[in-house]
Amino acid sequence: MRLTSDTSSDGIREQLFVVDDTPAALWTPDGPAVTRPLVLLGHGGGEHKKEPGILARARRLVTECGFAVVAPDVPGHGDRPVQEEYNRLAIANQERIAAGAEPGLLLAEFHALVARRTVPEWQAVLDAVQRLDHVGAGPVGYWGVSLGCGLGVPFVAAEPRVRAAVLGLGGALASAAEAARITVPVEFLLQWDDERVPREAGLALFEAFGSAEKTLHANPGGHGDLPAFELDSTLRFLARHLG
Amino acid sequence: MRLTSDTSSDGIREQLFVVDDTPAALWTPDGPAVTRPLVLLGHGGGEHKKEPGILARARRLVTECGFAVVAPDVPGHGDRPVQEEYNRLAIANQERIAAGAEPGLLLAEFHALVARRTVPEWQAVLDAVQRLDHVGAGPVGYWGVSLGCGLGVPFVAAEPRVRAAVLGLGGALASAAEAARITVPVEFLLQWDDERVPREAGLALFEAFGSAEKTLHANPGGHGDLPAFELDSTLRFLARHLG
Repeated sequence: MRLTSDTSSDGIREQLFVVDDTPAALWTPDGPAVTRPLVLLGHGGGEHKKEPGILARARRLVTECGFAVVAPDVPGHGDRPVQEEYNRLAIANQERIAAGAEPGLLLAEFHALVARRTVPEWQAVLDAVQRLDHVGAGPVGYWGVSLGCGLGVPFVAAEPRVRAAVLGLGGALASAAEAARITVPVEFLLQWDDERVPREAGLALFEAFGSAEKTLHANPGGHGDLPAFELDSTLRFLARHLG
Repeated sequence: MRLTSDTSSDGIREQLFVVDDTPAALWTPDGPAVTRPLVLLGHGGGEHKKEPGILARARRLVTECGFAVVAPDVPGHGDRPVQEEYNRLAIANQERIAAGAEPGLLLAEFHALVARRTVPEWQAVLDAVQRLDHVGAGPVGYWGVSLGCGLGVPFVAAEPRVRAAVLGLGGALASAAEAARITVPVEFLLQWDDERVPREAGLALFEAFGSAEKTLHANPGGHGDLPAFELDSTLRFLARHLG
């Protein structure tokens, strides 16, 4: 872990660092170094580790739950170099969609491609962060929707340290088999009128999770219209399972 | 309103009374007579105004939210006389189901028949209770699943005093038109493996609500397996909208 910044403000310590090639941000409560639950936040497509939604979730998890929170940049996002392969694929996919291909399937294929990199990267980030005295090897949670769901499903399926996951705004097209391997509690957020994820695909992903405890929260509105009260609910969900 | 009992225990006052032909129970916090939110609880089929689930919800709404709670007996239930008409219909329906009729449709027809009595009865109960000094004319909420949903949908659609409703374990077969007239916030509870209400019928009822704010909470398990954390969530929902 190569630390690039270490600051503190309003009771929250923020450390920016790089693990191998992965830039990430870590937020922890100021105060004594104790082992605490850790939540990994997966950002959305075109976003990065310090976009406003990530910062808002991190702040509340730190101040209201006393958790540590870590957010890595996905390849091709944030402080990471442009990924020519991804860009070529995006252009090719646009052409395939124009020619009549199913957008959801292409998106799922893309997520599966990126996840082959992010799953080991995020595991390395967990390894590094949990060696810090002010984080330690406590229970781990995951929070990610949209791209953060497409990458989160294979991550949660692969990583036994994760004890509870918030996922959503994703469908079952490519990840049903991995979803079936998830057995930890899941809170799944679905937008009833999602213009990017067909309702049936979202319901099918919820159906696919192998977890005995899984809750679907569906609300009216499009992909970007998650109601604010659902963030409150996910904080309670993670506090209940990690706290 | 004819009062038949007035007791107090653990900070909760319980009054049993009859309005016209409707026996009901009212629970309020001990203490000064102030206007407060009022939640009407609709019980399930074969249950009554003081079954354990109703008592548990009433206790928490009174002690945690400071609300008044009222629960009427549905005709043919609790302290009310047997309804020969309902019993004849139940037997006829069993015969129709044995002959291949759709159980959900028969249940919906039965709920619609009962609701023609319960909607005006519950409105009269609200009138009577809101005239009491220790309840007053505050905002009203509704909580009812299963039979309490079948009767609750037409009640909430008809009664403008209701500002928020918890409904669930019901389908759209008979009540989609009334559901469309509901515009207040709804929290809707669906059991993913409900053996009495087909999943598609439950999703269709959620779809049918006219409310701009409506949330579907779906969990694995059968008709009777609502998780305990959903009661917590409904208390927060009602507190947010009535408090």
